[in-house]
Amino acid sequence: MVAPWEEKATAKRGKLAASISKDYMIPESELPPADRLDVSQVPKEVLPKEVIEITDLTATEIVDAVATGKYSAVEVTTAFIKRAVLAHQLLNVFTEFFPEIALKRAAELDEYYKSTGKTVGPLHGLPISLKDQFRVKGVETCMGYVAWITNEPEKENSTIVDLLLNAGAVFFVKTNIPTSLMAAESRNCVFGQTVNAYNRTLAPGGSSGGEGAIVSMRGAPIGIGTDIGGSIRIPSSFSGVYGLKPSHERFPYLKVANSLEFSESIVSVDGPLAVSLPDLTLFSKALLAQEPWKHDPRVIALPFKDYEVPSRPLVFAIEVNDGLVTPHPPVLRAMKMVTEALKKAGHEVFEFKSYKPEEGLNLLYRAYTVDGGENIQGDLDKSGEPGIPDILPFIKGFKALTMSELFTFNKDKLEYKTAFLEYMNSARSPSGQKIDAWIRPTTVGASVPAGQLKIRYLGYTGLLNLLDYTSVVIPVTRADPAIDLPTPVPGNGLLKEIEQKTWEDYVPKDFANGPVGIQVIGGRLEEERMLAVAGVVEAALKV
Amino acid sequence: MVAPWEEKATAKRGKLAASISKDYMIPESELPPADRLDVSQVPKEVLPKEVIEITDLTATEIVDAVATGKYSAVEVTTAFIKRAVLAHQLLNVFTEFFPEIALKRAAELDEYYKSTGKTVGPLHGLPISLKDQFRVKGVETCMGYVAWITNEPEKENSTIVDLLLNAGAVFFVKTNIPTSLMAAESRNCVFGQTVNAYNRTLAPGGSSGGEGAIVSMRGAPIGIGTDIGGSIRIPSSFSGVYGLKPSHERFPYLKVANSLEFSESIVSVDGPLAVSLPDLTLFSKALLAQEPWKHDPRVIALPFKDYEVPSRPLVFAIEVNDGLVTPHPPVLRAMKMVTEALKKAGHEVFEFKSYKPEEGLNLLYRAYTVDGGENIQGDLDKSGEPGIPDILPFIKGFKALTMSELFTFNKDKLEYKTAFLEYMNSARSPSGQKIDAWIRPTTVGASVPAGQLKIRYLGYTGLLNLLDYTSVVIPVTRADPAIDLPTPVPGNGLLKEIEQKTWEDYVPKDFANGPVGIQVIGGRLEEERMLAVAGVVEAALKV
Repeated sequence: MVAPWEEKATAKRGKLAASISKDYMIPESELPPADRLDVSQVPKEVLPKEVIEITDLTATEIVDAVATGKYSAVEVTTAFIKRAVLAHQLLNVFTEFFPEIALKRAAELDEYYKSTGKTVGPLHGLPISLKDQFRVKGVETCMGYVAWITNEPEKENSTIVDLLLNAGAVFFVKTNIPTSLMAAESRNCVFGQTVNAYNRTLAPGGSSGGEGAIVSMRGAPIGIGTDIGGSIRIPSSFSGVYGLKPSHERFPYLKVANSLEFSESIVSVDGPLAVSLPDLTLFSKALLAQEPWKHDPRVIALPFKDYEVPSRPLVFAIEVNDGLVTPHPPVLRAMKMVTEALKKAGHEVFEFKSYKPEEGLNLLYRAYTVDGGENIQGDLDKSGEPGIPDILPFIKGFKALTMSELFTFNKDKLEYKTAFLEYMNSARSPSGQKIDAWIRPTTVGASVPAGQLKIRYLGYTGLLNLLDYTSVVIPVTRADPAIDLPTPVPGNGLLKEIEQKTWEDYVPKDFANGPVGIQVIGGRLEEERMLAVAGVVEAALKV
Repeated sequence: MVAPWEEKATAKRGKLAASISKDYMIPESELPPADRLDVSQVPKEVLPKEVIEITDLTATEIVDAVATGKYSAVEVTTAFIKRAVLAHQLLNVFTEFFPEIALKRAAELDEYYKSTGKTVGPLHGLPISLKDQFRVKGVETCMGYVAWITNEPEKENSTIVDLLLNAGAVFFVKTNIPTSLMAAESRNCVFGQTVNAYNRTLAPGGSSGGEGAIVSMRGAPIGIGTDIGGSIRIPSSFSGVYGLKPSHERFPYLKVANSLEFSESIVSVDGPLAVSLPDLTLFSKALLAQEPWKHDPRVIALPFKDYEVPSRPLVFAIEVNDGLVTPHPPVLRAMKMVTEALKKAGHEVFEFKSYKPEEGLNLLYRAYTVDGGENIQGDLDKSGEPGIPDILPFIKGFKALTMSELFTFNKDKLEYKTAFLEYMNSARSPSGQKIDAWIRPTTVGASVPAGQLKIRYLGYTGLLNLLDYTSVVIPVTRADPAIDLPTPVPGNGLLKEIEQKTWEDYVPKDFANGPVGIQVIGGRLEEERMLAVAGVVEAALKV
């Protein structure tokens, strides 16, 4: 017998499928066989040349092309719709698809451009993908929770959606996530598993995994994710794209659906994933030009301020290993590539250890579970769905804190953040210089086999959520079984058991071709500076 | 029989008294009789001319005089020690007095100046008074709680103390507060009642009432208070001095003692009270030049940025009455003075109503009581002291929230703040202009009779804590029984019962000579702009 929740989920999937017109789809017969794992190049094989021509552009190139009249917004939107649908056919990416809304919007933008000769803003005609959390008028939001399937379209936009519309963006699709968002995966009982473009047995990361997947296939030049422990950065790394996790209070998060939405113990932030580093800047600049602080009371009135990187050699604190769980060989190799490239480019690099990360992570888990999992469990119980086992660490075995326990937690958190800040400010390189950026892995490994609970440790990203630091992910390499050979379990990580299991997972062929990105990290509210410094790292890598 | 807590309190008072050398005191016989109420001019009558000459200067004038060698830091410190001790003799202001530490520090500053010809920073040689919450190495902190009397000197400074020392400040005294800080009074079971310089039957306000009292007597040119509902602004208004309540995350609050210290539901901020408006700027600029964000992880890296007031007429939204509790005649007169002065100076003023203040205040009280009063009651129970009845509204009749109730509170708070922000941003003057500043009373009345539970309503200040807006208090007038005549209870305030009682309190002669200051209010993190705009208001008043 099919449970009522399953019927509801099946119906929702059917509704999604019905929203995708055959006109946009590539016939089954022209798609690669299921056992073709790397589908990243399929678009170029099956889509018309003119679609590829547009969709291979970066966001920065697209807005230029539309602003100069080379392409219309409708042409650009149509091209991305097609490429995105193909991405969905190959990777199972969508949660909501609304091309009519998008094309109507694009036509209005074209009309405006035609009649005024001007663009409405810096993102005029740019298609942007959205994680399912973001609300779009006329579109549903179920966040992969069966209980949230209401068939009620939203009556208003999330604030960030409104502001990006003002800047000229076109929205056409929302993408997949894990149940509750509290996992670095993208699967749930409604929409199933999203997979990785570079190896379809692998996960695209999460929780903004649909965004990672769609951007990696250039089904959208920019996607918007959210991050409370790595949820922008892990999909950026696993899907081989660029990602920015800003600090809290920089970008608007108003009217965005969420689990644990009103906990203030640890706060989710939203930010872009993109096909190029300058696109992260384009997005941030355009968004802040909309003065989000006039709408979301949490946002600080800090306009985007171009940062010029000093011409002197920069100083990079390289933390290859956080001392808790040693990264896999592909990640160690990526860190080595970065280190050597920076050295070669004349920068100062030195081995760095962050301040007691085990304490920070302990606090992070306390923050995640302040309500004893009640909020998430409640949303599961409403429909009877089981959710996904990935999230059990956040809902089982905890009790909601009392107020007095919460105050103690707040005290411990402040003390740790204070100690960390003093540590960072007093840190000096061997030549006595202050640090310009801290570089560490994004995850322990390259993208992991999908749906197998193989993401065992999120400390490389999560610590930065606790600290509220800025982090930019740039892609570095892809796992190569021929060179990323397994070695004995290092066994020196403080989290011995997790390290042991993580290394037992490492069968090189199972990880083949999975992307690896690294984090370029700065302090709180240093978005401009870290985007610029990440450019220095990327330039060094490209030499 | 004397209760053990009383013995402890008496001993602490004895210790304070013993710390004040007779050399600094004015003999009992030269002091005015107890029935002389206005003692604001007593310093000029009983202190040596050279002491008055120095202590009548503003902070800005003092740092200039020391920097140019006119006075030494020791001379300045000695003068303020004398005037502060007199203030204490007249008003009962001190909680801790440490002239030896101050004079040693001042001598070191003089030595530095002598040997280098330079000052150590912009506050070189400036004596600053501290609310008892601020920790000073070698000095105790009991915050008026009997249970906190340990006779253990602090081993480290509050961060703001450290940073101001770097800037050249000299600390010599800490001042009185109400038990738990949750009252607009300044009395507790350890140090008793502090009274008002302009009428010793009146309260100096609170909770930073000792600071208001000492600054009003020019026992210190600048004092540092804290504010979670009006605790900088009410003493500024009641004591006739200038005060700045900054937004949270602007000034460092690290290692400052507090009640409800680690609640994040509503957060106390620290800021200056001063004898002149430019002194508030001097303080803010000097403090931010110390880059507090390198020490307190909550502080945003926003250096002080001089704000130039536009030369066009400014637009002032004047809220004489919040619609909940109508202010007393002296306050109505002060608001009228301000309105007319601004009009006369060519500015646009218009009558303004804030957005549903009753909802905001309801949220504020929920924020104050999230722990059901456990924290404060716990500190009372440790010694058995009764505390003061003023704080009962914050500890009796509440239950600590559950996590899920806290999330609901957070949701309600965010929604209100969002609605308020949209309301402020869309508000326009009759001529269609945006608001440059919002002006409202600081309190319902002029300073009230001390120790009689007559401060019944804190909505005029408290709402701005919930909103985290910037507020600058400037003194306007003093209550005058001859002109501030009683009228029938207006009876149109939403909070009928409080309004009724508040107006029954209004017996003009009981309020005689009590100062009245008004608030010049801007958005979040607008310290520079509001200090500058307050200057425009003050200039208009002085014409």
